Amino acid sequence: MTGLTERAAKLDAEDPLAHLRGEFDLDPDVVYLDGNSLGAPPRRVAGRVEQVVREQWGRRLIRAWPDSWWAAPERVGEKIAPLVGAAPGQVLVADSTSVNIFKALVGAVRLSPKRSEIVVDAATFPTDGYIAESVAELTGTVLRPAVVDELDDVLSDQTAVVLLNHVDYKTGRLYDMAAATAKVHSVGARVVWDLCHSAGVLPIELDALKVDLAVGCTYKFLNGGPGAPAFIYVRRDLHESFRQPLSGWGGHRDPFAMAPAYEPAPGIARARAGTPDILSLLALEAALEVWDGVDLADVRAKGLSLTGFFIECVDELLGDTVEVVTPRDERRGHQVSLRHEDARALMAEMTAREIIGDFRTPDVLRFGFAPLYNRYMDAHRAAQSLADRLAPMK
Amino acid sequence: MTGLTERAAKLDAEDPLAHLRGEFDLDPDVVYLDGNSLGAPPRRVAGRVEQVVREQWGRRLIRAWPDSWWAAPERVGEKIAPLVGAAPGQVLVADSTSVNIFKALVGAVRLSPKRSEIVVDAATFPTDGYIAESVAELTGTVLRPAVVDELDDVLSDQTAVVLLNHVDYKTGRLYDMAAATAKVHSVGARVVWDLCHSAGVLPIELDALKVDLAVGCTYKFLNGGPGAPAFIYVRRDLHESFRQPLSGWGGHRDPFAMAPAYEPAPGIARARAGTPDILSLLALEAALEVWDGVDLADVRAKGLSLTGFFIECVDELLGDTVEVVTPRDERRGHQVSLRHEDARALMAEMTAREIIGDFRTPDVLRFGFAPLYNRYMDAHRAAQSLADRLAPMK
Repeated sequence: MTGLTERAAKLDAEDPLAHLRGEFDLDPDVVYLDGNSLGAPPRRVAGRVEQVVREQWGRRLIRAWPDSWWAAPERVGEKIAPLVGAAPGQVLVADSTSVNIFKALVGAVRLSPKRSEIVVDAATFPTDGYIAESVAELTGTVLRPAVVDELDDVLSDQTAVVLLNHVDYKTGRLYDMAAATAKVHSVGARVVWDLCHSAGVLPIELDALKVDLAVGCTYKFLNGGPGAPAFIYVRRDLHESFRQPLSGWGGHRDPFAMAPAYEPAPGIARARAGTPDILSLLALEAALEVWDGVDLADVRAKGLSLTGFFIECVDELLGDTVEVVTPRDERRGHQVSLRHEDARALMAEMTAREIIGDFRTPDVLRFGFAPLYNRYMDAHRAAQSLADRLAPMK
Repeated sequence: MTGLTERAAKLDAEDPLAHLRGEFDLDPDVVYLDGNSLGAPPRRVAGRVEQVVREQWGRRLIRAWPDSWWAAPERVGEKIAPLVGAAPGQVLVADSTSVNIFKALVGAVRLSPKRSEIVVDAATFPTDGYIAESVAELTGTVLRPAVVDELDDVLSDQTAVVLLNHVDYKTGRLYDMAAATAKVHSVGARVVWDLCHSAGVLPIELDALKVDLAVGCTYKFLNGGPGAPAFIYVRRDLHESFRQPLSGWGGHRDPFAMAPAYEPAPGIARARAGTPDILSLLALEAALEVWDGVDLADVRAKGLSLTGFFIECVDELLGDTVEVVTPRDERRGHQVSLRHEDARALMAEMTAREIIGDFRTPDVLRFGFAPLYNRYMDAHRAAQSLADRLAPMK
């Protein structure tokens, strides 16, 4: 067992991203492995939001809107664009993930008015499925669940749009975006990728793969803060025909003209709905500065290494006491899921000892590894903590 | 002219709400008359958001969700409920006003599936009309514009829902909620009131008037901060049949069960969509504490007095150089609108001298009076500033 302790120390000492942990306000004694649910706070955020309230809101008052606030959804979108492989002008930050899935799906159905079906990953994160169900009802289309590895079984010339998760929230399985996108396109349908569990984890190539639309949240690996606004990507050549249903004044061509008829703005701004939520947007903007100069290839390399080391610790310390649900090869995000019948109670006990992952019903322990602040010693301590409880003799 | 200066000083000295200005972080030299667009920052907000980031997010991390964050939309809603005359359990804070109008209108149409028309105030704030247009398209209903004083002309047994503004954003005209609600109900239709320009201005009696649904923003007279989340009210007896289309996981009966099928939560929680935006919600929660112990009857009395005094100053100092668009009787909110052909340039000049109202196309100068922080001297200085420019000889 000392072998693993030493390996962790050596890996941490050699970690080229180790200095980034200093950017985050984290207790040194906490093992925080839930950044796939709520990222840790970048140190610069607290001061920034205070400054936005005191200096921008307090001193500039209404004048801050034209100064810098009105353009924040697009400006913050440009900071996310390079993280998802998007050229400028295609990413907007606004509203929640659920609301953006709604915009994306209705918009996608309208791009193919003669097609009657929406396909959704049957194991999707629930909100995606719930929203898809609502969109089907409102647009008079039919919802078809699909197994992602067997898309051929459901795709047809009736498929308008396919909503897929890049990383399965429960198992941590990473899907092949290139292959699935090509398959969807082969029947002339549109694809919407949910990047909630992959944005900030690995290089994503939305433009290069000709992805149609994508949505993602910013409070997981992007560390934007609890419930921070989500992002939506619409490929540039679709902008002109993209008509989303939350056609509030924010997405109008000339919002301050107060014109009686809705005319969508050119470009990605037409994905806006109401007044942008500035405090949360500017907190996110500060959080995203941590990514300046960070190479996603390095993030991905460390994430695979961290999760691989955790699986190694689990194998050695826990044996077959738990089942590793997450793929052992590179088809995984930065999350490792373990199955155990007492998962709920186990996670509660670990959390009480400041080793924090999360639980997903009915029997899954999830551990997220954020390469910007997690350490190999975190992986080792989490596995050791589980072993102390489940396999004390080993 | 000295008469008005002295009157202002006397009125300020006798103002029973004068002490509340101390709750706000406002430069003493700024005359801020745009609280109907963006309320001034309550002093307690800056420290609160910093604390939320450092102590809740930073120290509690994911554990803050069950601690206090998840229930914030309902909890903050309960702070707004008494300001709009709602008993507990009927107001929720989430998303933008535009998004909540969408939820309310689709939900209302679904309450009357055999009715085919949505009626909207023809002079509505644009976003209400844009969203209504979208809802009509998605629900297969017809949109009918109406003059609020002539609702009889359009109401029929085909009217499913009527969307009305309590205060006209441009003229400041206050509509009779009791009369219009009764008229809408007389044909068996539902009413949705937009309270953006009246919440925090005067006593509102949603429950007593049996209003069906209402929405409102929190960043105007409620001082929640730029783009702060909006609120939605659904009358209790409608909850069970209210089905809104943004059926994200937040509104599910058991969100963390991650069930495959959507089942709406009981009560107002079913108006939730995605993950709540915590930083903005908790900033708003702090801002609303300023209202503790404030009687809306006093707020209304001061608002009428302030706007009345402003109109008096305008009459005396400006004569017929400008047209007072806002009703001179009590059918007004806390906003006075003046018409002048050079309105845009005039407001720019005033703003440069730190006398801040706003401009609405094509020729309206708007001045909002927030009784919690505005002074009679603000009213006088604004009128004097206009007079210096437009009627220097008077």
